[in-house]
Amino acid sequence: MQQIANYINGQAVASHSGRSQPVFDPATGVAHTEVSLATADETRSAISAAATAFVSWSQVTPLNRARVMFKFKALLEQHRDELAVLISKEHGKVFSDAQGELTRGLEVVEFACGIPHLLKGEHSMNVGRGVDSFSLMQPLGVCAGITPFNFPAMVPLWMFPIAIACGNTFVLKPSEKDPTVPMRLAELLTEAGLPPGVFNVINGDKTAVDVLLTDPTVQAVSFVGSTPIAEYVYATGSAHGKRVQALGGAKNHMLVMPDADLEQVSGALMGAAYGSAGERCMAISVALCVGDAVADALVAKLQSEIAVLQVGPGTGVTPEPQMGPLVSQQHAAKVRSYIDAGVAEGAVLVADGRQVAADSAGFFVGPTLFDHVSSAMKIYREEIFGPVLCVVRVPSFAEGLALINQHEFGNGTAIFTASGEAAREFAAQVQVGMVGVNVPIPVPMAFHSFGGWKRSVFGPLNMHGPDGVRFYTRMKTITARWPSGSMPTGNQFSMPTMK
Amino acid sequence: MQQIANYINGQAVASHSGRSQPVFDPATGVAHTEVSLATADETRSAISAAATAFVSWSQVTPLNRARVMFKFKALLEQHRDELAVLISKEHGKVFSDAQGELTRGLEVVEFACGIPHLLKGEHSMNVGRGVDSFSLMQPLGVCAGITPFNFPAMVPLWMFPIAIACGNTFVLKPSEKDPTVPMRLAELLTEAGLPPGVFNVINGDKTAVDVLLTDPTVQAVSFVGSTPIAEYVYATGSAHGKRVQALGGAKNHMLVMPDADLEQVSGALMGAAYGSAGERCMAISVALCVGDAVADALVAKLQSEIAVLQVGPGTGVTPEPQMGPLVSQQHAAKVRSYIDAGVAEGAVLVADGRQVAADSAGFFVGPTLFDHVSSAMKIYREEIFGPVLCVVRVPSFAEGLALINQHEFGNGTAIFTASGEAAREFAAQVQVGMVGVNVPIPVPMAFHSFGGWKRSVFGPLNMHGPDGVRFYTRMKTITARWPSGSMPTGNQFSMPTMK
Amino acid sequence: MQQIANYINGQAVASHSGRSQPVFDPATGVAHTEVSLATADETRSAISAAATAFVSWSQVTPLNRARVMFKFKALLEQHRDELAVLISKEHGKVFSDAQGELTRGLEVVEFACGIPHLLKGEHSMNVGRGVDSFSLMQPLGVCAGITPFNFPAMVPLWMFPIAIACGNTFVLKPSEKDPTVPMRLAELLTEAGLPPGVFNVINGDKTAVDVLLTDPTVQAVSFVGSTPIAEYVYATGSAHGKRVQALGGAKNHMLVMPDADLEQVSGALMGAAYGSAGERCMAISVALCVGDAVADALVAKLQSEIAVLQVGPGTGVTPEPQMGPLVSQQHAAKVRSYIDAGVAEGAVLVADGRQVAADSAGFFVGPTLFDHVSSAMKIYREEIFGPVLCVVRVPSFAEGLALINQHEFGNGTAIFTASGEAAREFAAQVQVGMVGVNVPIPVPMAFHSFGGWKRSVFGPLNMHGPDGVRFYTRMKTITARWPSGSMPTGNQFSMPTMK
Amino acid sequence: MQQIANYINGQAVASHSGRSQPVFDPATGVAHTEVSLATADETRSAISAAATAFVSWSQVTPLNRARVMFKFKALLEQHRDELAVLISKEHGKVFSDAQGELTRGLEVVEFACGIPHLLKGEHSMNVGRGVDSFSLMQPLGVCAGITPFNFPAMVPLWMFPIAIACGNTFVLKPSEKDPTVPMRLAELLTEAGLPPGVFNVINGDKTAVDVLLTDPTVQAVSFVGSTPIAEYVYATGSAHGKRVQALGGAKNHMLVMPDADLEQVSGALMGAAYGSAGERCMAISVALCVGDAVADALVAKLQSEIAVLQVGPGTGVTPEPQMGPLVSQQHAAKVRSYIDAGVAEGAVLVADGRQVAADSAGFFVGPTLFDHVSSAMKIYREEIFGPVLCVVRVPSFAEGLALINQHEFGNGTAIFTASGEAAREFAAQVQVGMVGVNVPIPVPMAFHSFGGWKRSVFGPLNMHGPDGVRFYTRMKTITARWPSGSMPTGNQFSMPTMK
Repeated sequence: MQQIANYINGQAVASHSGRSQPVFDPATGVAHTEVSLATADETRSAISAAATAFVSWSQVTPLNRARVMFKFKALLEQHRDELAVLISKEHGKVFSDAQGELTRGLEVVEFACGIPHLLKGEHSMNVGRGVDSFSLMQPLGVCAGITPFNFPAMVPLWMFPIAIACGNTFVLKPSEKDPTVPMRLAELLTEAGLPPGVFNVINGDKTAVDVLLTDPTVQAVSFVGSTPIAEYVYATGSAHGKRVQALGGAKNHMLVMPDADLEQVSGALMGAAYGSAGERCMAISVALCVGDAVADALVAKLQSEIAVLQVGPGTGVTPEPQMGPLVSQQHAAKVRSYIDAGVAEGAVLVADGRQVAADSAGFFVGPTLFDHVSSAMKIYREEIFGPVLCVVRVPSFAEGLALINQHEFGNGTAIFTASGEAAREFAAQVQVGMVGVNVPIPVPMAFHSFGGWKRSVFGPLNMHGPDGVRFYTRMKTITARWPSGSMPTGNQFSMPTMK
Repeated sequence: MQQIANYINGQAVASHSGRSQPVFDPATGVAHTEVSLATADETRSAISAAATAFVSWSQVTPLNRARVMFKFKALLEQHRDELAVLISKEHGKVFSDAQGELTRGLEVVEFACGIPHLLKGEHSMNVGRGVDSFSLMQPLGVCAGITPFNFPAMVPLWMFPIAIACGNTFVLKPSEKDPTVPMRLAELLTEAGLPPGVFNVINGDKTAVDVLLTDPTVQAVSFVGSTPIAEYVYATGSAHGKRVQALGGAKNHMLVMPDADLEQVSGALMGAAYGSAGERCMAISVALCVGDAVADALVAKLQSEIAVLQVGPGTGVTPEPQMGPLVSQQHAAKVRSYIDAGVAEGAVLVADGRQVAADSAGFFVGPTLFDHVSSAMKIYREEIFGPVLCVVRVPSFAEGLALINQHEFGNGTAIFTASGEAAREFAAQVQVGMVGVNVPIPVPMAFHSFGGWKRSVFGPLNMHGPDGVRFYTRMKTITARWPSGSMPTGNQFSMPTMK
Repeated sequence: MQQIANYINGQAVASHSGRSQPVFDPATGVAHTEVSLATADETRSAISAAATAFVSWSQVTPLNRARVMFKFKALLEQHRDELAVLISKEHGKVFSDAQGELTRGLEVVEFACGIPHLLKGEHSMNVGRGVDSFSLMQPLGVCAGITPFNFPAMVPLWMFPIAIACGNTFVLKPSEKDPTVPMRLAELLTEAGLPPGVFNVINGDKTAVDVLLTDPTVQAVSFVGSTPIAEYVYATGSAHGKRVQALGGAKNHMLVMPDADLEQVSGALMGAAYGSAGERCMAISVALCVGDAVADALVAKLQSEIAVLQVGPGTGVTPEPQMGPLVSQQHAAKVRSYIDAGVAEGAVLVADGRQVAADSAGFFVGPTLFDHVSSAMKIYREEIFGPVLCVVRVPSFAEGLALINQHEFGNGTAIFTASGEAAREFAAQVQVGMVGVNVPIPVPMAFHSFGGWKRSVFGPLNMHGPDGVRFYTRMKTITARWPSGSMPTGNQFSMPTMK
Repeated sequence: MQQIANYINGQAVASHSGRSQPVFDPATGVAHTEVSLATADETRSAISAAATAFVSWSQVTPLNRARVMFKFKALLEQHRDELAVLISKEHGKVFSDAQGELTRGLEVVEFACGIPHLLKGEHSMNVGRGVDSFSLMQPLGVCAGITPFNFPAMVPLWMFPIAIACGNTFVLKPSEKDPTVPMRLAELLTEAGLPPGVFNVINGDKTAVDVLLTDPTVQAVSFVGSTPIAEYVYATGSAHGKRVQALGGAKNHMLVMPDADLEQVSGALMGAAYGSAGERCMAISVALCVGDAVADALVAKLQSEIAVLQVGPGTGVTPEPQMGPLVSQQHAAKVRSYIDAGVAEGAVLVADGRQVAADSAGFFVGPTLFDHVSSAMKIYREEIFGPVLCVVRVPSFAEGLALINQHEFGNGTAIFTASGEAAREFAAQVQVGMVGVNVPIPVPMAFHSFGGWKRSVFGPLNMHGPDGVRFYTRMKTITARWPSGSMPTGNQFSMPTMK
């Protein structure tokens, strides 16, 4: 069986940890690869390689760092289909969805190609007479990324292209569930001309994570995952003096107004709820319908759509199904248990995905729809991260908005409406970081920034876009005066102010 | 004796804590005021007042929030001398220095007057066909500031004008050693038209601090103080999910090149080392002389300058002395013990401030100069925060630079030279956040940002300037599409990418 | 009778031109002041004073230049009512409207207070190895403003606060119809501490204008007025090598969609069409109604509103009328002749303002409403600049949009609708510089920029906001390298590129 | 003989003008190509193709427009050597220099790849209560570029990548002396996927230029060339209502301070004065030596360097010479006549290039050095645009600076010094747009902007960098309010201000 370990200093390096775990094809339930779980020492060796590489990489001009990104972009395009298949084979999502993931990640590389412009500091002449002040945005050193299984390419690509373009070096700890694509990204970076040690991959578990969070060489940690781990990462990394951005869970609501086009709403919801089997932090898992008429019509519409939705392997089947398996047997079981809980709590189970493809060895759960869900139910309060959509009925825009604002999470949300007023008020008042207006999955583009509010995010700076550049740089402010006649020669004991 | 407690919801509020401590005039050693130490409940009541005020203050337009700042600026100018006297009476610094502090704080208010421009988000039409994306920079809610004794006006003014202009409300916990000026700032804000509850002051100690760090209502914490406390604040606030910026200690080196004008160097050093009795986080406490010739000449020059330096009360004496007392008896004793340690470690004590003004009941320590200090000595390694200057001799620019980069702290530094090359290399390579070129105390102006590197700072965003605005705002990104014919009506199961 | 001449070098200076003209109170038709028309030499003396003042003013730090603006703002607030009366007495607009004009002008002063931040250039370290590049935004020298009668305070305030804050000096040539307020602004600037010669006022006609457009000392010209003069100014100033921004005429359409709230539409239209007697470059002069039902209802509603609209003097009458006189007898006659033409061309005259207040010696024309106006009519094609509103009926959004886009002018426009889609498409497709969505007079705020499209504007940069700062500064880009070992010593004959 | 005509609507199109002229290889004096000179109608057909293409190209999303630029960059890299040979064969510069030109042009394409970020407008929520304002940066329409012979690739690449990425379409009128490379660029753009009509090339003379300057469809004109033509272009284009940026001539001084390293100075000067045979608008043509000692030593050093400088064909000779021929026989004759004039005016001719390679049929003039040049001489006052360097002796920094500031042109300049003070004062005070500190040819990088001061530039916006984006976009500001309860329903007659 194929063995995956670590990528350190420009090459794949075997692990001596003695610990490993299988990597499954979720569509078949068969393990095709084994991934080793790195030791603390191995993790430290990656950090050390990155620290060594930083010395020279940070001195490469931004223009030349960008040129590596230009080449990396070309390689990503060239290998897009190969990578999409790899994603599907380990994550389970369908091929076209994996292509979409890659495009979104690629766009961050495109953004990072503009780093010479993005790294500009500010320059002020004569902040005082004959005194100038300017700022430099310098790289931090070794940065770490810890990324989830659900986007094995896109989420790492939110982080390292910008970190590296800024002059940092990087250690990525991807999910151990789908490690192959991150390793391929490392190879492509090397092929693009990135010097050894600038980008490293450590496959591992909490052992590796804890080294990344505590090793004093690591300057910054970027994390995407569940909220409890995000909190742990934020608290631990911060307690060790690092800057941390940690993105956590979500329960994204779509508010469906009575003036929305239900055809569009149901189309958008089907994709946003069941695409990628609901394993997206921007998936819509709650449809808030304003009024029973909207809810009744929408549920009926969804029910008929679900009836024809095809569930199957992400690759190798023609035509492509709309939905693949979940990532693991355990996760599928957990999602089924949430469905059980919903039934037990009294929600109306309109479509039941628990037995879909039950004869397959793959980790399938079919599209599931609950109606009459209340905000007290567990299936409403918690993030299920599977193909389970809850319909909640609210009497008005205001109560819908209030419900969203009361939820623990504030990652994404959407409103579907024809009304400019409703859209504006929703955008202004909703306590959520990413807001769609007639857009079900409002993931900001690479040149804007990704991040939620409330317990969906920890740390002041979002991922990619201008915030990403700020996160991966340290400001240095120089204040300069060139004496001779202009400089006062007497002693100055008072707080200097500028004339 | 005058009693100072808290300022909550637009007015001074007495404390029921039963705990209090005296506030001294450091020049006389006499306590003239008593400050109560707030209870946890009192702290929570300030937070609660701020939370209530947030509801309406955050809805005031940026333009109108700015106009309160315009009025506050006018009041600060009108009351500048009164405030400077108050600073001197509690902190000890001389009157003209206190005026300088106020000017520097005032400049942040001026910067905050530009908030309508500074709060602009980004707008992109057609991120995809018919899809627009834009960002809003919205206020966080209740923010807290915890500030040190050495700048009772300036450091709070680094924080709250921007926080408030951004639409937040604020709870300030100033140093209990000089609480009067923060209370006056609160009164002037009210006079400027700031609604009750938007700005609150809690006088207290760790009890109050811990509430601010852990109360879930508080969204952000800004701190300036010593490194151990900065670390505690950063770790604790972060562990409670908040965004934190925590500025810590310093050991600021001035690198004196052989081509520097020694007249200018000694003038700059006298002010930077002994101004405000060395109680500035940007004070120069180490002069790194490149070559013995430079050191010998500089030490001789400083010695003669020290001989004529006047130490005395910060106000009421004409002509004004150059240096006032330290802030407290305990701190003066601690500084003296550092001098003892320096002698014990073998540094050459060129000027000894231990007995200066020894007949006064004030907390005086005179200007102290050590030569032949080595990097192993405690007086080199630790922040003394008093009028003690260490001369260290290095053979070259490179070794001077290396020494600075090896120090734990990286707050401020300066180089004195006539050489463009030396200045550029120093600015490029030094691992310090604020760098002066022939400027001894390179505090960035209000429209730039203040912050160090290494263990002088925790958190990615600096204070005031554009970073300050980013710190006190939460980004919200809206992605909007207006359907009708333009919107695809089919289901979309793949990761949406933009056409 | 009061004599107004020029303000040069910090004081009012009498004219020796021998040419002058009366300044009327349009509400009474009585001349209360005489304004001299400057000679070419007098104009050159103002330029010369400005050139001399530039030498030192450009060296004042931006921080201190901003502080003059802070004081000027305070003085404008203090004198607001006095200034509003002066505006009304010479322009005719009602007092509260004049107050509004002043507020809008004041906001540009507030924006200019942020000049230390706004003037920042960009700084890039290592554009090549060891090579840095940064930009300075430096003042131009002497700038000129030529402004129209309809906003004697606001339009000059769009220009000179930013020009001056950027370090330039300024010669203003305001309208000779209402010269008093510009002179008062000059006095208040002097009172605010602006040094003599930094701001100068020349009252005059084409003689003065032509000197400003051709004198080689003048670096930049800002103009607001009619399109033919804007073209002349742009062509002539450009032919003399200057940078020019010239804003011209307008014919602003409001597109009224069937889903708009007609109560709001008619309220908005009444103010936008008849406020300031229609003498605003952002007035709405065409209401495009989508469908006859909308048009019929709106016309009926407007007719009844017009019936109760009070016309009268802008000050001294209680309650304040809604509309004052036009600026001059000639202009009133011209507006009446347009009404005659509309009748002759077959438009339906719903309300006829020609005889309103006909017994007054003031220059009154009452609110006039035409229905069934076609795009071929003169009253549709030309800017009337009076209280004449044309209703044009279109069958659809698309035809309404097309009509707007076919018009010669593209200054402002508005759509009234409840539909997010209509608003977005309108904003995206309309070829007009300033677009209101349910906002009848979408004048951008001071921190955004003012400017139209098509023949409403000449020159690439708009007024005030960031564009204003760019217009009044010249970029200088420094590229620096500090040799020693790092610099190649061989000859380099090839186009240097950066490593 | 090869015939070159126009590139319109995605393909090469023959000309029916009947007018043409030969294109020479300046190294051999042999014409190898014939270029037709377009008629007015042919020029209009290119404009018309561009206007048609604008309709759809402006609707392509910035992201997708950028992707064409990414592909174009890859093609430029792939064809770099082929293009460099073509440049050398028509312009005469040596191959490695032509490669350098291409790299500099390529960098603008790289900058344009970041257009999705660069095109962002500003968004302000609540400029007034419930009122939002945001700006769009929309394309202009058809833009024109008129470019000189000396950089047949680089100067067009300063313009069209940004113009096109912004959504405009483009008509390029390159120099008729070296038309082949612009035509190849057009082909490569088509190969990169640019739709027909977006980029067009018209080869021609004043006939074509005048159409571009006067045709109402053309919205913007970018020009680089001599000052008289720049003035003509600026005046004519402006008189026809267009936005114009016109870059003219130069006389770039290098100020050599006594503390400069003469080895470095002479190396820098040899390249900056004689590279590309001095046919660069950023060439150094005047060396201002501070003090006779500097001048004597530098002249001696240059003389010996000139003695070994190889002049010869730009390609095909190994090792590559340092300098190729001038572009044309006429231009070579003109340069020789300037040398004659310098001798006649009394300058000391240290090295005489008039007879260099006199036996060749190529258009060679050798490196020429004058000493003791005075500011009154024609060779000092005028731009020679050939390999002629003038040494002027000045007694001090101040007089050197004054001389530079008195010159008609202000394109580029440099100072060579070791002094930070001299560099800073020079950068602050010199009235020149592009300033090198120990950098002889301080051409700003693509992400900064290129432009001079004084009579070297006409128009407020520089080329490429952020200014380039501003030049090629029109701002549209939307102000939006969504009524219902929030909107006042009464009539509003006063100037609307924001609450």
